[in-house]
Amino acid sequence: MSKPLIFISNDDGITSKGLKTLVEVAKGLGEVIVVAPDKPQSGKGHAVTIKDPLRITKVDVFEDVESWKCSGTPADCVKLAKNILFKDRTVDLVLSGINHGNNVSINILYSGTMSAAMEGAIEGKNSIGFSLDDFSGNADFSASKHFVKNIIKKMLDYRGKTPLLLNVNIPNLPLAEIKGMKICRQSKGKWVEEFSESIDPRGVPYYWLTGKFENMEKEATDTDLWAIKNGYVSIVPSNYDLTNYNQLNNLDFII
Amino acid sequence: MSKPLIFISNDDGITSKGLKTLVEVAKGLGEVIVVAPDKPQSGKGHAVTIKDPLRITKVDVFEDVESWKCSGTPADCVKLAKNILFKDRTVDLVLSGINHGNNVSINILYSGTMSAAMEGAIEGKNSIGFSLDDFSGNADFSASKHFVKNIIKKMLDYRGKTPLLLNVNIPNLPLAEIKGMKICRQSKGKWVEEFSESIDPRGVPYYWLTGKFENMEKEATDTDLWAIKNGYVSIVPSNYDLTNYNQLNNLDFII
Repeated sequence: MSKPLIFISNDDGITSKGLKTLVEVAKGLGEVIVVAPDKPQSGKGHAVTIKDPLRITKVDVFEDVESWKCSGTPADCVKLAKNILFKDRTVDLVLSGINHGNNVSINILYSGTMSAAMEGAIEGKNSIGFSLDDFSGNADFSASKHFVKNIIKKMLDYRGKTPLLLNVNIPNLPLAEIKGMKICRQSKGKWVEEFSESIDPRGVPYYWLTGKFENMEKEATDTDLWAIKNGYVSIVPSNYDLTNYNQLNNLDFII
Repeated sequence: MSKPLIFISNDDGITSKGLKTLVEVAKGLGEVIVVAPDKPQSGKGHAVTIKDPLRITKVDVFEDVESWKCSGTPADCVKLAKNILFKDRTVDLVLSGINHGNNVSINILYSGTMSAAMEGAIEGKNSIGFSLDDFSGNADFSASKHFVKNIIKKMLDYRGKTPLLLNVNIPNLPLAEIKGMKICRQSKGKWVEEFSESIDPRGVPYYWLTGKFENMEKEATDTDLWAIKNGYVSIVPSNYDLTNYNQLNNLDFII
């Protein structure tokens, strides 16, 4: 039986430690191909490049893994892989990450990591975005490896009719202190005090995005935010259908 | 009674015809304030600017309307308005658009228009993204005005407990040919043949995003895509909770 084909992208860029970790784990479970941004793309959300041409260049960064760097966003990487690089091959699983920094709650909206996974899901592939709750470039991914490997294995065996899109967040703890995995929903939260204000050398103010994240469901114990703050890996089944079905039948007052 | 305060942004930029149309309509229904990108930001999805400073500059483009241009994305515009420019004011309604080009189906993911509206919803405000099914810079918004005005009026009167986030798409037809408005769900669809390939003067290939949109639910008559292709204004109640609740109880095999 041939090996499963695993496609990998990310948003921190082709040289990031989190991508390297993910490639190393996935290599043991299938044939891996990589297309990742040539520079960091954090916070790019589901952006695509419309007004500029895109470049893809083969690189030799991972042993025995066909790898390409791309001048665009994470979503561009997946689209180029599908349309240009691997259009005659059938991908079994799409992975993105491991992101340096969590993507819980509404941060899925800003996340390039999750948009790469979401592009996979739009193409009907089982797709997973992995994130570690540590923003530093030199984050410690050793505990992540254990969970990433387990989840990839389960997903390669999954034969359900509906493709799955998983948002996986791993707490920044040693393996022995992680209590397990939880299937969760996306927490309600928002950012507050979002900018630092400074004055440039010409006396003109400028603003830099920063802020504190506010959990708006402090009592809830079934959310991704609760899970990673309480020592669990959070797994949120996610969706690219943004219809609010609860409201669908209550809007006749508008029309 | 004081006038309602209506905040407006967009993704085509401060000088676009669609924004001007929306401001003109909204001015008749409340006090309007505008923060819009200083350049086109189409396709930027829910991107935020992390690695660069942001600038905001007061501009005099709309009569009797406080207006600012911003160097960032549509999401940045809403965040700067909330945190810096209008932090002591209570906004009653957040509007975005009118976009030059439709944002039906999965295009909501790539849409800067809808990400501005979504930022409003995250802040608990009723929010609407408006798009016209015509990508040209000189699109004809005369029929749009009628529906935009009606929908804004209804939303200013809405007193429901849950904020609404509406994705409104208007077909590119004369007013007399538009059959009415439909409350819809987001259509399933995807882009195919997504790149044009060319060779630059140095012999190196480059790729430019293009493509055809493929409706994956050709028989369905309850979708946004069906509505605008059949002469109706589509209104999709939308969501920033991306949890796939249908799958939440079926994933124990992973953990």
